[in-house]
Amino acid sequence: MSVEDKRVKRLPREVRERQILDAAVRVFSEHGYHEASMDEVSEVAGVSKPMIYAYLGSKEDLFAACIRREAGLLMEAIAGGVDVDLAPDMQLWMGLRSFFEFVGANKQSWRVLHRQVISQGGPFSEEVLAMRSRAITLVDALLVGAATKKGVDEHAQKSTEAMAAALVGAGESLADWWLDHPAVPTRTVASWLMNLVWMGFGDLVEGEVWTPSEH
Amino acid sequence: MSVEDKRVKRLPREVRERQILDAAVRVFSEHGYHEASMDEVSEVAGVSKPMIYAYLGSKEDLFAACIRREAGLLMEAIAGGVDVDLAPDMQLWMGLRSFFEFVGANKQSWRVLHRQVISQGGPFSEEVLAMRSRAITLVDALLVGAATKKGVDEHAQKSTEAMAAALVGAGESLADWWLDHPAVPTRTVASWLMNLVWMGFGDLVEGEVWTPSEH
Repeated sequence: MSVEDKRVKRLPREVRERQILDAAVRVFSEHGYHEASMDEVSEVAGVSKPMIYAYLGSKEDLFAACIRREAGLLMEAIAGGVDVDLAPDMQLWMGLRSFFEFVGANKQSWRVLHRQVISQGGPFSEEVLAMRSRAITLVDALLVGAATKKGVDEHAQKSTEAMAAALVGAGESLADWWLDHPAVPTRTVASWLMNLVWMGFGDLVEGEVWTPSEH
Repeated sequence: MSVEDKRVKRLPREVRERQILDAAVRVFSEHGYHEASMDEVSEVAGVSKPMIYAYLGSKEDLFAACIRREAGLLMEAIAGGVDVDLAPDMQLWMGLRSFFEFVGANKQSWRVLHRQVISQGGPFSEEVLAMRSRAITLVDALLVGAATKKGVDEHAQKSTEAMAAALVGAGESLADWWLDHPAVPTRTVASWLMNLVWMGFGDLVEGEVWTPSEH
């Protein structure tokens, strides 16, 4: 068998799997996990049901595969949007922009990743929790980098992982709010979060700390 | 029947329901919804299973009742901790402190409210989404109050609901992080979030806005 033959033979499966996953994300996003039917996925994908089962397994497996793929694409979009040679604030800004651009361009993915998982839970939430962990680690590294550049001591850096967790939660929650307010432009929603969190962290880095007034 | 008799007759049911709910929160928190057994709830509560079913219904009903009660207690703790006559930053600080104090003192409640619901989903997530909505409305009112006091125009105030959504998400995510880092004192974790979000929003109120540098 020539190299040409092998490529031709392998390509269709990859293409079909992508078609199936694209269709499944759409169907799960529209109907939710329980209401979604494999018949509709088959129809939307233009791939027979036996082939879907053969390639991607049960409905549960298919949903897990959707989450894995969409989570991977989201993380790639964020990491790929960040230029590590830039100043930390620009890195964060580009990361946030990439996040909201992904969510804006892939609202169905976000619905499946966030809302459907919350309303389905179970084994699926583990995939999403793993993605959250990776996102927190990414943001933490960025904040530690920023703090180190500014000469902040290690004691103050103890809070960066907590700050990263807060920022990831803020991003998720704001993206969820955005699904219900689609008229707000991507850049606007990204800059709201940037201003909220960066001006905050920026002030901390500069040594300005809010303290409650005595009363 | 005298007033005295009626009180005596009604009290035991309230007490028993509280005992059942306390036990159920503990059991659901420890084992998760699916693994939790009504036998164990009955044992921990010291209330017979038939009486649990009679008072609070099925396991699903009981879980929903736990979420409703814990969400109500959390919202009361936050709203009760805020003195509306104080400056907005102090109001937010006291609200955050109350939130983290509740989570710190009721880690089992938070596990049920947040982690269990995420891993169970279904009808339970609606109770929690309703609570999130109320929390966002509360924070939004506070931010609008702060912005109005500072003379910020209505255009700039458009973002307060989005900011409130971001802040609620940040609080949830940080509380979740805190479950895994219990050595951090309540006041410390609350002040991290206060500094992150208030210094940020404070700068916005003062008209200082971060913009990406041209490159």
